[in-house]
Amino acid sequence: MRKLNIAIIGLGNIGSYLYKYLNENKKILTEKNNCIPIVKYISAKKRNKKRSINFNKKQWLNNYLEATYLSDVDLIIELIGGAEGAAKKLVFNALKNKKHVVTANKALIAKYGDQLAKIAEKNKVNLEFEASVCGGLPIIRSLKEGLIANKISKIYGIFNGTSNYILSSMDKKNKNFDEVLTDAKNLGYAEANPSADLNGDDVSSKLKILTSLCFNSFLNDKIYVEGIKEIDKTDIINANKLGYKIKLIGFSELLKNKICQRVHPTLIKNNSYIASIDGVLNAVIIDGKPVGQSIIQGEGAGPAATTSALVSDISSISRGNIKFPFSLSTKERKKLKFDSIDNRFFSAYLRFEVFDKPGVLSNITNIFSKNKVSIKRLIQNPNKNKKISSIVIITHNSKNNSLNKILKEVTKKKYIFKKPKLIRIDEN
Amino acid sequence: MRKLNIAIIGLGNIGSYLYKYLNENKKILTEKNNCIPIVKYISAKKRNKKRSINFNKKQWLNNYLEATYLSDVDLIIELIGGAEGAAKKLVFNALKNKKHVVTANKALIAKYGDQLAKIAEKNKVNLEFEASVCGGLPIIRSLKEGLIANKISKIYGIFNGTSNYILSSMDKKNKNFDEVLTDAKNLGYAEANPSADLNGDDVSSKLKILTSLCFNSFLNDKIYVEGIKEIDKTDIINANKLGYKIKLIGFSELLKNKICQRVHPTLIKNNSYIASIDGVLNAVIIDGKPVGQSIIQGEGAGPAATTSALVSDISSISRGNIKFPFSLSTKERKKLKFDSIDNRFFSAYLRFEVFDKPGVLSNITNIFSKNKVSIKRLIQNPNKNKKISSIVIITHNSKNNSLNKILKEVTKKKYIFKKPKLIRIDEN
Repeated sequence: MRKLNIAIIGLGNIGSYLYKYLNENKKILTEKNNCIPIVKYISAKKRNKKRSINFNKKQWLNNYLEATYLSDVDLIIELIGGAEGAAKKLVFNALKNKKHVVTANKALIAKYGDQLAKIAEKNKVNLEFEASVCGGLPIIRSLKEGLIANKISKIYGIFNGTSNYILSSMDKKNKNFDEVLTDAKNLGYAEANPSADLNGDDVSSKLKILTSLCFNSFLNDKIYVEGIKEIDKTDIINANKLGYKIKLIGFSELLKNKICQRVHPTLIKNNSYIASIDGVLNAVIIDGKPVGQSIIQGEGAGPAATTSALVSDISSISRGNIKFPFSLSTKERKKLKFDSIDNRFFSAYLRFEVFDKPGVLSNITNIFSKNKVSIKRLIQNPNKNKKISSIVIITHNSKNNSLNKILKEVTKKKYIFKKPKLIRIDEN
Repeated sequence: MRKLNIAIIGLGNIGSYLYKYLNENKKILTEKNNCIPIVKYISAKKRNKKRSINFNKKQWLNNYLEATYLSDVDLIIELIGGAEGAAKKLVFNALKNKKHVVTANKALIAKYGDQLAKIAEKNKVNLEFEASVCGGLPIIRSLKEGLIANKISKIYGIFNGTSNYILSSMDKKNKNFDEVLTDAKNLGYAEANPSADLNGDDVSSKLKILTSLCFNSFLNDKIYVEGIKEIDKTDIINANKLGYKIKLIGFSELLKNKICQRVHPTLIKNNSYIASIDGVLNAVIIDGKPVGQSIIQGEGAGPAATTSALVSDISSISRGNIKFPFSLSTKERKKLKFDSIDNRFFSAYLRFEVFDKPGVLSNITNIFSKNKVSIKRLIQNPNKNKKISSIVIITHNSKNNSLNKILKEVTKKKYIFKKPKLIRIDEN
């Protein structure tokens, strides 16, 4: 029987869960893959830290980089995290030394994936990263295998559980951003430093990876990214009144042979599928030919769901199935053009908090008209206690650039007392 | 470069679509799989039928069985259909002669899958059947690969687009079964003879296949199957009033080491995910450990979606990835016990159309009490024009057997003027 000697580097929640899983499920994995998975080595930053796993002294590597040159290592599982430093050193060295690599590191793959794939390809080893995008959802394997026949025109969805938890809790519990963030931290749904989750960076890395898999293109940094920090209770209430939910959505889309990648809070119809995705769930929607629209939904994070993804990668390698990390060889991947969000058209929700005096409304609508943005709906809500008003405008389909110009111009006006809001609408 | 010589047998809508797809997408498939797919031969019942495809005379086989012994055939794609006859002969002979097989034939796999897998295994060839279950949804590949790490406890969902179209149209358009069926036929959503779609047989075959993949068991004929033919407008209206939708759902579930397979119309909460699946869509929900709940949704039928699935199988074979057809070898598959639905517990909706006279309600509730089924809710609606009443009862969780006994006993009563209804409720 074939064997696969594994080194797990990084023993946080995920590494420890995986270690235990592989020990407890060796038999069934061996039967399914015709290959015995053996955790030969483990390593992490601190040897003496209290850990929940039992291991043999011989398994411990004092220097994690040893895994990259020991002859009894076939596969290195990188669970350190971060695009630079130790993780980068480990994965580059591993592939150079002809070791297979499995990683959950979206930042590393989004930044260095193309370079790493080239080395993996040259050395005929696997580089697999199912766990880097949407935890337990088998989205990468589905794109590479189950949906291989399809020409994909659009992929979008909810790729970050933390921000989705916050938005859906603000909606359900009628609470403010900060209150809900505190809840999320207490429940373990947000990290102590949740900035990458909230500012859209986490979604950005995932979307870049999905884009290259969907469109057979190289990774590309042209991406518009906006997080959820500025969404407040009033926007959520307004959205509900207008028949929408607010979700942080990543979109990647091919239009006229140009790809546009964007991540931003989005108003979506409250009877749409994606509006129903609450809490920490992730959901990916793929428009492809010939298959039509496909949806994959599930647990996007946490040690258990991530282990499910890691084991699918380990199994693929166990079966001796060498594949290109991004489906196609570097030579065959396309140099597609990436388009800026500025040239795309959206209908949008804008909210202006103004001092209520004559001429304000006329001035605002005038600025819209000057920028050739036509107004579909306008709601002015006076605030009884103060001399202020809230003006909510829904536009018809308009160029992103024009919407931004309006925002910039109105922001400067003296009658504005709070930073105006612009949230794009997706009518699908 | 490696080549894969393919014979497509059966040239209906699906076979013709696949033939064109493979010709038009040869380059990208070759790049992705490192192997050239070549349609060497085709065959179908009638040679002279008008077809939408162009082919070379040399490609045509007068006797479709030739494909099973010609040395320049590696893979046979069976698109004849039916569990017996030509399809059976073709697939058995192909595997015996060491040809790979890809099939969309759920009836054949559900009936002979275990025997066929054994031959495929012995001869080290692939038998793949992604297209046999839920068209374009990559459910089988996800179970075998993307979700390989998981111990699955339950799989359920909407596996038949025709019946789902009918039920959701009855609901949305407030029409009767027969009217909607006529519409469905006109729109191409129902075949001329739709009996297998409507009586649950189609779902039954799919569920048997999914069961063996999820629980590593053999195919098993112990399955409760009930179709949608007896659902009428009144039931749909009642369901709505009670906060439910009616869907034809297939369930397979492991409880106390016994598997229970069942297919029946089901009342499900109208705010649940599955209630939102309308029209011809399919959706599969999987509860697994460690991944949690995963959902895959998409187009369940039609030549385009089915081709997506067939090509994923062809690609898997192209990559030279020999796998056990049911994930595990015959030797390792489990002989699990299958439980009858009779021992399971459900809450249920029962509807009795009765002649309205004194004592009827008391007699009915008495029969419930005698069978130890407790009533959660009872609604009696008098019909103004006649001396008849409709009695709708929602029960607490009760043994299936007891529910059936009640149904049988009440049916015999003289005050009943129409066959009573029993529809199980799923509270998840």
